[in-house]
Amino acid sequence: MGKVASLAALAASFTVVAGQTYQRLGACPSLGCVLPPDQSDFLPGQYFDLRVEVHAPVNGSEAYNDGKPDEKFSVTITKEGGKAQDIAKFFDIEEPELEKWDFSWYEDLYAEDADAPSVVNVAAKAYRRLALYEPGTYHVELSYYGDKTTRAEWVVRPLATKKKAKNVILFIGDGMTTNMITAARLIGHKSINGKYQSLLQLDKFPVLGHQMTHSLDTYITDSANSASALYSGHKSTVNAMGVYADSSPDPFDDPKVETIVEILRRVWDSAWGAVSTAQIADATPIALTGHSRSRYQFGALVDQALNSVTNYTWTNQKGPDVWFGGGAEQFYPGKDSYKGEDYYAKFADAGYDISMNKTSLLELGNSSKALGIFCRSNLPVWLDRNVYTDNLADFTNDPTGAEGPALDLPGLKDMTLKAIDILHKRGGDKGFFLMAEGASIDKQMHALDYDRALGDLLELDDTVRATIAHLKAIGELENTLVIVTADHGHGFDVFGGVDTKYLSEQSTNRAKRRAVGTYQNSGLSQYTDAAPGVSYNTGAHFPVNWDPRYTLAQGFGAMPDHRENFRVHKNGPRTPAAEIEGFDEDDNFANPEDNPDGFVVNGTLATDEASGVHSLTDVPVFAMGPCQASFGGVYGNIDIFYKIASCLGLGRPDAKAGGDPGKPSCSKSHE
Amino acid sequence: MGKVASLAALAASFTVVAGQTYQRLGACPSLGCVLPPDQSDFLPGQYFDLRVEVHAPVNGSEAYNDGKPDEKFSVTITKEGGKAQDIAKFFDIEEPELEKWDFSWYEDLYAEDADAPSVVNVAAKAYRRLALYEPGTYHVELSYYGDKTTRAEWVVRPLATKKKAKNVILFIGDGMTTNMITAARLIGHKSINGKYQSLLQLDKFPVLGHQMTHSLDTYITDSANSASALYSGHKSTVNAMGVYADSSPDPFDDPKVETIVEILRRVWDSAWGAVSTAQIADATPIALTGHSRSRYQFGALVDQALNSVTNYTWTNQKGPDVWFGGGAEQFYPGKDSYKGEDYYAKFADAGYDISMNKTSLLELGNSSKALGIFCRSNLPVWLDRNVYTDNLADFTNDPTGAEGPALDLPGLKDMTLKAIDILHKRGGDKGFFLMAEGASIDKQMHALDYDRALGDLLELDDTVRATIAHLKAIGELENTLVIVTADHGHGFDVFGGVDTKYLSEQSTNRAKRRAVGTYQNSGLSQYTDAAPGVSYNTGAHFPVNWDPRYTLAQGFGAMPDHRENFRVHKNGPRTPAAEIEGFDEDDNFANPEDNPDGFVVNGTLATDEASGVHSLTDVPVFAMGPCQASFGGVYGNIDIFYKIASCLGLGRPDAKAGGDPGKPSCSKSHE
Repeated sequence: MGKVASLAALAASFTVVAGQTYQRLGACPSLGCVLPPDQSDFLPGQYFDLRVEVHAPVNGSEAYNDGKPDEKFSVTITKEGGKAQDIAKFFDIEEPELEKWDFSWYEDLYAEDADAPSVVNVAAKAYRRLALYEPGTYHVELSYYGDKTTRAEWVVRPLATKKKAKNVILFIGDGMTTNMITAARLIGHKSINGKYQSLLQLDKFPVLGHQMTHSLDTYITDSANSASALYSGHKSTVNAMGVYADSSPDPFDDPKVETIVEILRRVWDSAWGAVSTAQIADATPIALTGHSRSRYQFGALVDQALNSVTNYTWTNQKGPDVWFGGGAEQFYPGKDSYKGEDYYAKFADAGYDISMNKTSLLELGNSSKALGIFCRSNLPVWLDRNVYTDNLADFTNDPTGAEGPALDLPGLKDMTLKAIDILHKRGGDKGFFLMAEGASIDKQMHALDYDRALGDLLELDDTVRATIAHLKAIGELENTLVIVTADHGHGFDVFGGVDTKYLSEQSTNRAKRRAVGTYQNSGLSQYTDAAPGVSYNTGAHFPVNWDPRYTLAQGFGAMPDHRENFRVHKNGPRTPAAEIEGFDEDDNFANPEDNPDGFVVNGTLATDEASGVHSLTDVPVFAMGPCQASFGGVYGNIDIFYKIASCLGLGRPDAKAGGDPGKPSCSKSHE
Repeated sequence: MGKVASLAALAASFTVVAGQTYQRLGACPSLGCVLPPDQSDFLPGQYFDLRVEVHAPVNGSEAYNDGKPDEKFSVTITKEGGKAQDIAKFFDIEEPELEKWDFSWYEDLYAEDADAPSVVNVAAKAYRRLALYEPGTYHVELSYYGDKTTRAEWVVRPLATKKKAKNVILFIGDGMTTNMITAARLIGHKSINGKYQSLLQLDKFPVLGHQMTHSLDTYITDSANSASALYSGHKSTVNAMGVYADSSPDPFDDPKVETIVEILRRVWDSAWGAVSTAQIADATPIALTGHSRSRYQFGALVDQALNSVTNYTWTNQKGPDVWFGGGAEQFYPGKDSYKGEDYYAKFADAGYDISMNKTSLLELGNSSKALGIFCRSNLPVWLDRNVYTDNLADFTNDPTGAEGPALDLPGLKDMTLKAIDILHKRGGDKGFFLMAEGASIDKQMHALDYDRALGDLLELDDTVRATIAHLKAIGELENTLVIVTADHGHGFDVFGGVDTKYLSEQSTNRAKRRAVGTYQNSGLSQYTDAAPGVSYNTGAHFPVNWDPRYTLAQGFGAMPDHRENFRVHKNGPRTPAAEIEGFDEDDNFANPEDNPDGFVVNGTLATDEASGVHSLTDVPVFAMGPCQASFGGVYGNIDIFYKIASCLGLGRPDAKAGGDPGKPSCSKSHE
């Protein structure tokens, strides 16, 4: 009866595993893993790798088979209504070699406290660069340990080969929620007796939807995983992009899925580009081309953007036609560039015009490929570039790698409009795809710096407004699907008004909180009232006063310890929590230099967390142009990919319909 | 130069007043007030009162004219392109008598601390029961103090007299946001590898919109004001419904606006009803018929629902055909019923069948008007009615007024389906309007009791699902516009997963917070995993386990001091903050009896606040049925009224087209 008992124990432990803080492997709750896993969807003809793993936990609650993984596992695939076939035979490829490795993980916080990891031995195979062309349902079955099976149901979605939109522009407000849009409207647009006198551009979109952002294996996502879902139609694991995360040690051998720009280049040879106010190797822009379990492999990911995947046969997306953002440290030679090499030079060698400031950006011609890298790290935010401009001098972010600040900086609007001109020219009749990201909505919400976050949200909205006007001017508005969405949220909202003068002048934490007025005492927005001597000259659709006496009371459900005074941080971005001398490393407290006149809020997050975190909420989708109607209602983030792909007619009925890079093969690892 | 200087000072003070914690009179930033104010919209033929006031502040920063208000003010109205006419002449009514009163207010928190109120003397008039029939723009001008004017631009929206929907069902999830819907879906519906295996009914609606919920005079609203905007197309002030709040002492003489059910009864004589899980005199249900600046006049508001407005000539909406909810204390004779009278008897006298429990509710016939009052105060929530049912015995809420609990309780679904049957029968060819409210989403979010709130959100969704099925069964689905929306939000979101076992076993606040896992450590929902011995038998679309080890980490941006352990409150609704013996009254601390094993979070609200508060966020609108397309995109809460009214063809080209109750007159005050 030993075996039965251990199986029952195993079954019980699985129930616990399902919702744990730590997971053995997210998409693999049983001991056999099929990646892409159960419930995966595919575009007809989309390339993907299949990874199968058999796990043999050595110790811990799941210990099995003395830690020896079954090496004789087998995999079949069945199209619904058809017969099961051996997987290599079905795809007409050679059977790949068996791979073996081990990894360890903590089963829960108690195990971590006791430093008692569980070790798992693995036997695995990878079937590379497959594609399913015929729409329908497929069943994949991994058989192992004699009597065990792991099943995956895959759906190849209906075929849409007709191109309905010539161009697609996908704006991503990173971390942007409906709550933030509401707050940004309030500070950027004047209202009289509850009626707005002007509106956000987003408010004027004809179609609104909501997308669910959950990861494959956790309900809170990060920006790599969520961007990857938007670009590929496949959810993944936190920090992964363009792949399903496997358990192998190499972050570049995980099973890949083909992305929108790879497919678009292969099928229609259209132009494509990315623009971001983040470092260009940051998750949201880099997930268009990146295939790695680790978003932090910045240098290698930049190489993938230029040269496509090189360690396996894969689609060559030919490099972006236009690529604008920050992150110069991945370009000048040094510790943060791939293999220490000069990627400015590599892009130049590949025919790119290079720009490192706003002046030269605006002077770029439209015929050549263009790389614009304007600073190290992320671009300073709109508020520092436009209102508190003295702060720019405090950055050490010259894009050449020299000491000193980058001062001749473009904004999201400058970059986006120039990108459109280049893509329009280079794409010609074949059209283009552009992703433009307002990145610091997220980054500044992490810092609880809602003023900087909302400033960048208004910059995104202003960019969308200018984009629509520009598309109209160049005669492309009717041909272009414009989508504005987000990748995840933060649990932010406004809950009242604050008399900041009163708050500052009270002496205790509790007395300061009396300055917060709610309901009938929430007041009206003073951000739209010009104050004597205050005019930031930042144009319509932005606040005329960022520092009124009566500000918004704003907050988060998830936060580190911090001190709150609800006022703009004039001296630069906020650091709400920090380590304190005399206490442990990674133990964060309210930063005594942040809002010294504020009241203390102790946090709701683990104390090793110094900033806010992402949240669960569905995020909005605004759409206009061809196929706009398909973006109404509620759906998953991966559906955005399928809606765009359908509108672009990217489904392929057979391998010959899109450029085929030849038979798949396996070669050396990327790093 | 004395006058010029004081005017300049006045102008400067107005800038400050505009965003203040306290306001002299919200819709009246100058010394002359026109209500309805500037930027008001009207349905053609909708009845309304016009109130004009002239203020003479006696002291404070605005002191003017020695505190003597101009009694010789005049009011004109001009249709755009036409000539200005005296207001009484334009509407063909007698000039009303001059009214006078005074009131006082605090200019800010400093004035309140010093107990230094500002006193204002007022001269005013009210022009009662007016209507504008011709669409277009109108300019109203109040002239006073010789050279001062206050102008209001009014827009009578385009006429729509054709009825496109026979029936309208408006579901209101009180306080329900997109964030909450996302969380409710997560706990009520199973997901495999990020793909939901079932969805909310809301997720299946074809059209999605967002509505902006701001008040007339503050950006955060309450439920009276916001319900009133949804029902009348006019925003108002916090706590007001069916009126613009004036400064007079009488809460029943404020200028009224006609509501959807008043107009519907007058124009088409359709049936109407309201269902709520709150006391039926609570803001959301009572704003259909209530006309008062104070939502807390519960007894009088119940009388208004039965008898319509009686202190002035107004539309008689003939009482609801069906009225189901809680709040028995306004019905049995006693201190909480109007004038201490027996409103069960008054409703019975008016021909109503009376039900006081679920059994008799289900036995009601469909031909008679029906009143169902099932308990005192609000209905116990879904979680207590269905899962932790032992808690019901702890309530003292028998609907007869007797000691003891109400145990035979219907839910929102029972009440709504019965209401539809009665309205369908009584409305006949004339159709019906039903408002059904999930009230305790809001009430339990106030208590930071997200489990109870999300349970009631799932009950609302389940009710919508059952409603659609029932409408289909009775052949009315194609004839019925179904809308699901909210009235405002709470700043709630989910930000991770919690190992509640680990949390409970740690001994310090900071150590407990380590139990919160974010991103890749957020885990999967355990609420949908059946646990041995745990089955609540509450059917599909609800959690099967409310008390798993790994729960959701949830929180608010706005909160009182409280103690958090992220677990369901099995013993009844939560009281997060409370007064502590030895401290001041109205000074609230973390309730030591709430989550004694949790960690302390000090709040972000004034310490006299013992619960959470409403937030700013736009809220979702889901629509299906006739006119559904008009509900896409982003718009104001008042637009919901105009969209419904347009779909019901309620615009009237002249006074004779809808039942006219005769010439307006002024009579005694209501109380």
